Amino acid sequence: MISAGKGRTADLNPGGLRCESPMRAERLIVVGGVAAGLSAASRARRLDPYLEIIVYEKGPDISYSACGLPYFIGGQVADADALRVYSPEFFRTQRNIQVLTGHEVTELSTSRRSVTVIPPGGAALEEVHYDRLVLATGAQPARPQIPGLDLAGVFDVNTLQSTLAFERALDSERPRRAVIIGGGYIGLEMADALVARGLEVTLVERGARLFEAADEEISSIVERELETHGVRVIKGSAVTALMGDRERRLRRVAWEGVAAGSAETDCVVLATGVRPRVKLAEDAGIELGSTGALAVDDAMQTSAAAVFAAGDCVETKHRVSGRAVYFPLGTTANKQGRVAGENAAGGRARFAGIVGTAVVKVFTQEVGRTGLSLAEAESLGYAARAATVHAAAHARYLGGKDVVVRVIAERASGRLLGAQMIGPEGVAKRIDVFATALQARMTVEQVAQLDLSYAPPFSTVWDPVLRAAQEMLRELRR
Amino acid sequence: MISAGKGRTADLNPGGLRCESPMRAERLIVVGGVAAGLSAASRARRLDPYLEIIVYEKGPDISYSACGLPYFIGGQVADADALRVYSPEFFRTQRNIQVLTGHEVTELSTSRRSVTVIPPGGAALEEVHYDRLVLATGAQPARPQIPGLDLAGVFDVNTLQSTLAFERALDSERPRRAVIIGGGYIGLEMADALVARGLEVTLVERGARLFEAADEEISSIVERELETHGVRVIKGSAVTALMGDRERRLRRVAWEGVAAGSAETDCVVLATGVRPRVKLAEDAGIELGSTGALAVDDAMQTSAAAVFAAGDCVETKHRVSGRAVYFPLGTTANKQGRVAGENAAGGRARFAGIVGTAVVKVFTQEVGRTGLSLAEAESLGYAARAATVHAAAHARYLGGKDVVVRVIAERASGRLLGAQMIGPEGVAKRIDVFATALQARMTVEQVAQLDLSYAPPFSTVWDPVLRAAQEMLRELRR
Repeated sequence: MISAGKGRTADLNPGGLRCESPMRAERLIVVGGVAAGLSAASRARRLDPYLEIIVYEKGPDISYSACGLPYFIGGQVADADALRVYSPEFFRTQRNIQVLTGHEVTELSTSRRSVTVIPPGGAALEEVHYDRLVLATGAQPARPQIPGLDLAGVFDVNTLQSTLAFERALDSERPRRAVIIGGGYIGLEMADALVARGLEVTLVERGARLFEAADEEISSIVERELETHGVRVIKGSAVTALMGDRERRLRRVAWEGVAAGSAETDCVVLATGVRPRVKLAEDAGIELGSTGALAVDDAMQTSAAAVFAAGDCVETKHRVSGRAVYFPLGTTANKQGRVAGENAAGGRARFAGIVGTAVVKVFTQEVGRTGLSLAEAESLGYAARAATVHAAAHARYLGGKDVVVRVIAERASGRLLGAQMIGPEGVAKRIDVFATALQARMTVEQVAQLDLSYAPPFSTVWDPVLRAAQEMLRELRR
Repeated sequence: MISAGKGRTADLNPGGLRCESPMRAERLIVVGGVAAGLSAASRARRLDPYLEIIVYEKGPDISYSACGLPYFIGGQVADADALRVYSPEFFRTQRNIQVLTGHEVTELSTSRRSVTVIPPGGAALEEVHYDRLVLATGAQPARPQIPGLDLAGVFDVNTLQSTLAFERALDSERPRRAVIIGGGYIGLEMADALVARGLEVTLVERGARLFEAADEEISSIVERELETHGVRVIKGSAVTALMGDRERRLRRVAWEGVAAGSAETDCVVLATGVRPRVKLAEDAGIELGSTGALAVDDAMQTSAAAVFAAGDCVETKHRVSGRAVYFPLGTTANKQGRVAGENAAGGRARFAGIVGTAVVKVFTQEVGRTGLSLAEAESLGYAARAATVHAAAHARYLGGKDVVVRVIAERASGRLLGAQMIGPEGVAKRIDVFATALQARMTVEQVAQLDLSYAPPFSTVWDPVLRAAQEMLRELRR
């Protein structure tokens, strides 16, 4: 077995010198250097100053804001460097963590407690022993099975590198028209970004509506917002082919479904979601959950001893339904990474699970959701009800605009199951009030009694959250 | 006994015609026609379409946004009519509620179940029978005991009428300088408003600091914000005299304390808080609580049968400390009014109490607080700790600015006791996340696990709420 001695110096890694001796420091290896991986490494370091910590990142970039990528395309972030949070240098000098980019981990042996790593340039494989392992392998684009994905002019914004490639094309080729495939968060943000860049945008969504995380009452407003800003929205239709010219350059997109058709375009953006990257773990015999992501307990431990996992490669418990769900988001990845890192360093942290909170800005509208939608609640077997209100986000005499608030509750118990909100202001942090109420398993009656802040520039005397809860109570009494 | 038949028509008040007959509808009388009183009347009507409902309001105005008055002075609200929510006409025609302005209730007999009313113009007293009574007599200015309060140039913004009088003076007399007495919410809002109107403002606060609802770490930032905008702040000093000229017009204000002194001024604004208006009830033998406000149970019932009370005249239970507190705010008044009205109509509603949430805008800063401050917690005997963090309200690469978040927790249990926040954005509804957590009696550990929304325009991947909770956890472990 080869020790992981690359580029380390003895003073930075006290354990390095004592490798294989009975006195050596334990070694934590982290696979993946974006959100979950670096949270785990940092947390472990804070708990144990002596642990040897190595992070292997396959790609060239670490620690950047993936959620900021659409804003780089949209032009609100001028320099991609603004999206980089920390450098490998920072981790080495400030946290005594070795972050190795361009290092792909190709194999994991839980019996030998080792990983096999390909260093940059495809040099000889190294097998590196671990005492504790954190898998933060993330997700990969769930690319649809359609011909033409290899044509020039097909892009995604899943990584910093793929986004930079798209930006270069936007700059140099000045495309006039774009087709976005997928109407989820990223598809919506990209529609906004590309309209801001002056492109003519078509968005094709396979499902019956955009932003399916919310119910029709909210998603229809999202669709209207896109159309108001000139986006052509095609729903219930799957893209079946990308067609190019002789130079293998994309020219046309065709789709089938309720609105079959095709359109000329200069570029395509894939926003068809992601799936967990689990091959390394699966090949090592680590258990997957029902969602296809890695199964972990609330300590973020996998089925293998001393192997933890966190972030977009794991499934997590939904605190409302109690079910395992795959809901990959940066916030969750960071929280899970923290727990995995703490436990990998011998701590006893627990991850509480999620309630499915998400928010997105689409042109002039803020859209938020948390908990279960009515559709989700019903498909899980809840006898649920929903109520929707329009209410001013702050005092109308100070220019307050309406937000639409939808609340979902269990009929018999009155328990809050979820909420959704859309409007030009005051949505993002109000949805957090519902998220907090869900975490506390409140009833709608309890939500209606919340002592929420009020001053005319920020709210109305009955906050929209309270109005929605009141309307839900009326609905439940019917 | 005289029936309350003034101006009613039989079809609007089916009960009126049958007065004193064994079949007559029951009569609900509400004393006070602003927030709590009209909420109670409206709620009662919704539950019982046959109840006769009469609201007596002493003043000329009903149903206006008292919280909006500083914005009228500041010029952000051009027309005071924008602050009026509903007219007596609206209540009569839309809700079949008789709202009688200029009617002062001077006596209450709980044994005869009657109130004595002086109609406008001082006509003969009327004694009016009630079956249920809601006292929503509100609060009155707690005017300091200083000579000169009767001078021309002394104002307050406690009611629409007193605010209109101030506005007329600002318009016609064009004062150049103002002294505000009191550094609470209203004093701060008035400082902002009068600077916006171009006045030179001095604020004199009796206590050791402004905005005492928050701890020093937050209130010092409030003070700096005032000074940055040219307000002269004098703390630890009580105004001892207002001095006028021969025409009884205010000319000078003198104060004593840590910074004794005096200043010439053209006007004074009293922002010295309010105290509950309880004389009517007290004279009738209804019990007061320890705070001097009316004591009510969680059904908003007073010590007298069939007599409910709500709003700024009652004390309420603080859900964090379990103690009775006097915390008069419009939101609470409306909620309590609703409960009182429901129960007066035979319902079984309960008021959950408050957690002490409040928010105020001061120039460029939003300031919020909920629960107990560290000072309050310690004075109540909690072994408490506090932690304060600075964190970006949203992604810095999209221009996010720092907010300061302070969290207070019980040392042994880790239970959240309170939170405070100040910053140029994203404060008001974030404080509501803490308010919700307090209502649910969460620990700081649970707050740190909240699944809060994140997208770069609205938050950072670790929301400031989560960062503050993490810092508090570190503090608790020390």
